[in-house]
Amino acid sequence: MYKEIISPRFFETDALGHINNTVVPVWFEKAREPIFQLFTPDMDVNKWKLIIARITVDFLAEIHYGTDKDVEIRTGLVKIGNSSMTIRQEVWQQEKCCARGDAVMIHYDYASAKSSPIPDVIRSELQKALISE
Amino acid sequence: MYKEIISPRFFETDALGHINNTVVPVWFEKAREPIFQLFTPDMDVNKWKLIIARITVDFLAEIHYGTDKDVEIRTGLVKIGNSSMTIRQEVWQQEKCCARGDAVMIHYDYASAKSSPIPDVIRSELQKALISE
Amino acid sequence: MYKEIISPRFFETDALGHINNTVVPVWFEKAREPIFQLFTPDMDVNKWKLIIARITVDFLAEIHYGTDKDVEIRTGLVKIGNSSMTIRQEVWQQEKCCARGDAVMIHYDYASAKSSPIPDVIRSELQKALISE
Amino acid sequence: MYKEIISPRFFETDALGHINNTVVPVWFEKAREPIFQLFTPDMDVNKWKLIIARITVDFLAEIHYGTDKDVEIRTGLVKIGNSSMTIRQEVWQQEKCCARGDAVMIHYDYASAKSSPIPDVIRSELQKALISE
Repeated sequence: MYKEIISPRFFETDALGHINNTVVPVWFEKAREPIFQLFTPDMDVNKWKLIIARITVDFLAEIHYGTDKDVEIRTGLVKIGNSSMTIRQEVWQQEKCCARGDAVMIHYDYASAKSSPIPDVIRSELQKALISE
Repeated sequence: MYKEIISPRFFETDALGHINNTVVPVWFEKAREPIFQLFTPDMDVNKWKLIIARITVDFLAEIHYGTDKDVEIRTGLVKIGNSSMTIRQEVWQQEKCCARGDAVMIHYDYASAKSSPIPDVIRSELQKALISE
Repeated sequence: MYKEIISPRFFETDALGHINNTVVPVWFEKAREPIFQLFTPDMDVNKWKLIIARITVDFLAEIHYGTDKDVEIRTGLVKIGNSSMTIRQEVWQQEKCCARGDAVMIHYDYASAKSSPIPDVIRSELQKALISE
Repeated sequence: MYKEIISPRFFETDALGHINNTVVPVWFEKAREPIFQLFTPDMDVNKWKLIIARITVDFLAEIHYGTDKDVEIRTGLVKIGNSSMTIRQEVWQQEKCCARGDAVMIHYDYASAKSSPIPDVIRSELQKALISE
């Protein structure tokens, strides 16, 4: 499992006083970077090899802004297919799980616009981050 | 069904050259406003009556920025429960459906932090926007 | 002068109940599109010819979210130099000027990483949008 | 001087391949938090005491996304007035200053909608972060 600490930004609150729901997919994208890096080690956007197929987010509790309100994003793999994978992510704030979601990503060749099998060397790295569903 | 035209912003592109995936939930929130307005006619945030429980988005095709690239967001109801509803939304660009998603929203009393039944007068308005799943 | 109507998004509010200050530069970028289009008629990002050098924004009044809260962004030129220009922009909501700012943009060749003179045919179009400072 | 490390997000890039200019004011707002906290120690948005009057940003170099691309935001005071202050901020990436800007903020009473003098105890804290212009 990968862990990323994110400090909520004032800009990310909305008029209801909490973090707006649209921010969670932004944080989840940030926290998938260790996985992006397995596919594109130098993170050069010209060599990008992943495309997103689907996201889901369950909102479980309000996420707050303020002092001591850093969140921890936990990221693991729940499924590794031939060319796709399902990434499970959670937002934790003050020992509470506030949001949980999945992202389905595909190993993709942008030049030919086709999916392609996940290479074995990357697959074995991904397997280290497998979590039970 | 509700329709909302949105003009993609340069800021919403990413280094892969298309609209970033995290933008779609932002557009969907914007396009749910006719539904927000049924619950809070003057859209005063101090009288807000909805809370979001879940979103899903399927990314079907790249969304482009540029001349003649306005998108149409189509919004309808696929399920109306006692206190919750499932809203189906699609992003259309140049006659192609580029993304489709659901949002589950709950009629909610922020003061008591409890869900509450959708009033009949609003329910009958929502039923006019029902679409087949 | 160019005019662009923008409908504030719930996401763009913050916990103080109004539109967050960081949103104004986003709206201003959107409203500069008629100028982008003079330089890159098909708005193809691979042929982009402008780079931003400086922005200023004065915040004059709170900007509100809600019913009948669309804003009008007014955009004109206050200075056209050899390779640069100064664009003046204002946010109007309900007959009040809520924010005013300048953007200095440079006609730029990304391949050689150098500024280049604004072509005469574009210059004469820009002059039509000149406003007094 | 205050220092804040920020890790650029993929979402913050644009189609030109770099961090979009509208992101810099967002980072600067984040990096002003130590100053927010002097005025509102628990960062409770219901007790907020600052309002923004003006921002300027000079864009000096492209800001990149990728491995080892964290930026350092440096924040200091260049002027402390009776009720207002001018905050100078810079974005540093790989030993280069990529953007520099000022934010004018006002000590403000939201209930009466009036500016108010900066209290002496806060003023003396702000003076510790004074930098030469």
